[in-house]
Amino acid sequence: MSLLVTGSIGIDTVVTPHGQADEVLGGTAVYFSFAATQYVPVRLVAVVGEDFPAAFRDILTSREIDLAGLELRKGSQTFRWTGKFTGDMNEAETVDVKLNVLGEAPPSVPPAFLDSQTVFLANTHPTAQRDMLSQLHGPKISVCDSMNLWIANERDSLMKTLRLVTGVIVNDAEARQLTGTVNLITAGEQLLGFGPQFAVIKKGEHGALLFTSDGVYPIPAFPSKDVRDPTGAGDSFAGGFMGYLAQCGQCDTASLRRAMMHGTVAASFTIEDFSLGRVRNVTRSEIDQRVDLLTGMLRIE
Amino acid sequence: MSLLVTGSIGIDTVVTPHGQADEVLGGTAVYFSFAATQYVPVRLVAVVGEDFPAAFRDILTSREIDLAGLELRKGSQTFRWTGKFTGDMNEAETVDVKLNVLGEAPPSVPPAFLDSQTVFLANTHPTAQRDMLSQLHGPKISVCDSMNLWIANERDSLMKTLRLVTGVIVNDAEARQLTGTVNLITAGEQLLGFGPQFAVIKKGEHGALLFTSDGVYPIPAFPSKDVRDPTGAGDSFAGGFMGYLAQCGQCDTASLRRAMMHGTVAASFTIEDFSLGRVRNVTRSEIDQRVDLLTGMLRIE
Repeated sequence: MSLLVTGSIGIDTVVTPHGQADEVLGGTAVYFSFAATQYVPVRLVAVVGEDFPAAFRDILTSREIDLAGLELRKGSQTFRWTGKFTGDMNEAETVDVKLNVLGEAPPSVPPAFLDSQTVFLANTHPTAQRDMLSQLHGPKISVCDSMNLWIANERDSLMKTLRLVTGVIVNDAEARQLTGTVNLITAGEQLLGFGPQFAVIKKGEHGALLFTSDGVYPIPAFPSKDVRDPTGAGDSFAGGFMGYLAQCGQCDTASLRRAMMHGTVAASFTIEDFSLGRVRNVTRSEIDQRVDLLTGMLRIE
Repeated sequence: MSLLVTGSIGIDTVVTPHGQADEVLGGTAVYFSFAATQYVPVRLVAVVGEDFPAAFRDILTSREIDLAGLELRKGSQTFRWTGKFTGDMNEAETVDVKLNVLGEAPPSVPPAFLDSQTVFLANTHPTAQRDMLSQLHGPKISVCDSMNLWIANERDSLMKTLRLVTGVIVNDAEARQLTGTVNLITAGEQLLGFGPQFAVIKKGEHGALLFTSDGVYPIPAFPSKDVRDPTGAGDSFAGGFMGYLAQCGQCDTASLRRAMMHGTVAASFTIEDFSLGRVRNVTRSEIDQRVDLLTGMLRIE
């Protein structure tokens, strides 16, 4: 099934204990797209400024990413993020952020994308997420993300969005903030009460939890020794997860559980290098091998 | 196979967001023993002071715990610990600790215990752990624990102990301190390099990692909604893990992986109530059901 993603494209500067990357291609929609194109072509809806390097556009076109929905807005500047990872590298510290074009009007969905069957609404204003959703011709699977800013300041709007989507993917801090509940198992069940058929809580290096009407399914992260830069791990998780769902065309519990493995493995490749260094050259066969390896690690006889 | 444990017995006072327990039975050897007696009888080697309540002794004798190695030392006081859990309750804050009798000479191993085939040396001075081990008639499986104090101040002695044991069980912070490595997968591999055939790193609510010469095996914690008091969860993990190994009598990778499930489930019952509230009445059948449930949660088809 066709897969549309809307989210940020940014110019990132990242420092980790293993080095530094200056002004590299980043953003939720970018990490998502690279993970998802391993499964299906991706339709990208995003906006950048006139400073967006042509070389970055070339990186995107090197994969099956349809850029008909990528707006290069004159007079605007691209979103920029500078972050730092220290210690166990499980959480980024934002050193500097410039919303730039992300603080302006959202990009439009091109007519050719309106029939998209699978949609991922990466973290933007929940009203913009709903606007985007209402333009589409009834996607079969729609999933959204969110963040602390909208949870705190746009709660009612976010609740409306949650009533419309098939699923929600958030991290542990967001799940706790959204539900006012410390225990993540209780939080996940409450997320289902807000409307979605399924909820995923990402816990970084500690894995992820899937909640459906059939129950809760925890999985650990893939055991990675070679963690150089965690930037984009969560977005890659979403990309691998949604890419797999779009390819198999359904979201029953069994498919969702397999999608969790693909999301986990997508993240495990992303963290092995700065920016898209590793995910640009990983093959589907390498992904499938790692999914099989993780499946075996979790199969107790 | 017979299972001997040596470790602390304490009088605990614990505060969590769900309530408070004053002067209740606690200590590593106690939580360990209650989890392990679900599988095999336990031989306990520990020392308490003359203030140790008879009612606490009765709690221990209510299960198959052989108290021939429990010394009630005249003129001494029992170990006391006061702790607090807040927020996500993943880490205890020690409010007050009185070593009391634990700061004196260690207890002796009674002659009837010298033929023990499986041994768990819970966190004591690494030299005391080695002394205990040398008294026994060649146990088949010996596993030790440790803590920040010994890792920092008795490193050489601890390394000698690690060369003698079959396995080591530590938490994430201890694994990092012991290896000087932040990445837990690398840390676990380094633990094997210190001598043991297997290593377990416990991560509290985030599960645990098993390392053997066959590879690394991560498992998540059992998804628990009802977390009232995490005290003793790690010791219960060790008890369920070692109890299972003692019952099956071997420690190949397949057995160790199943033991991880039993440890995880033992911990999941302990945290459901204060002190031994839940583990005193849990049945082996309830444990096996939860192991089956977790096994199913992790089996991806």
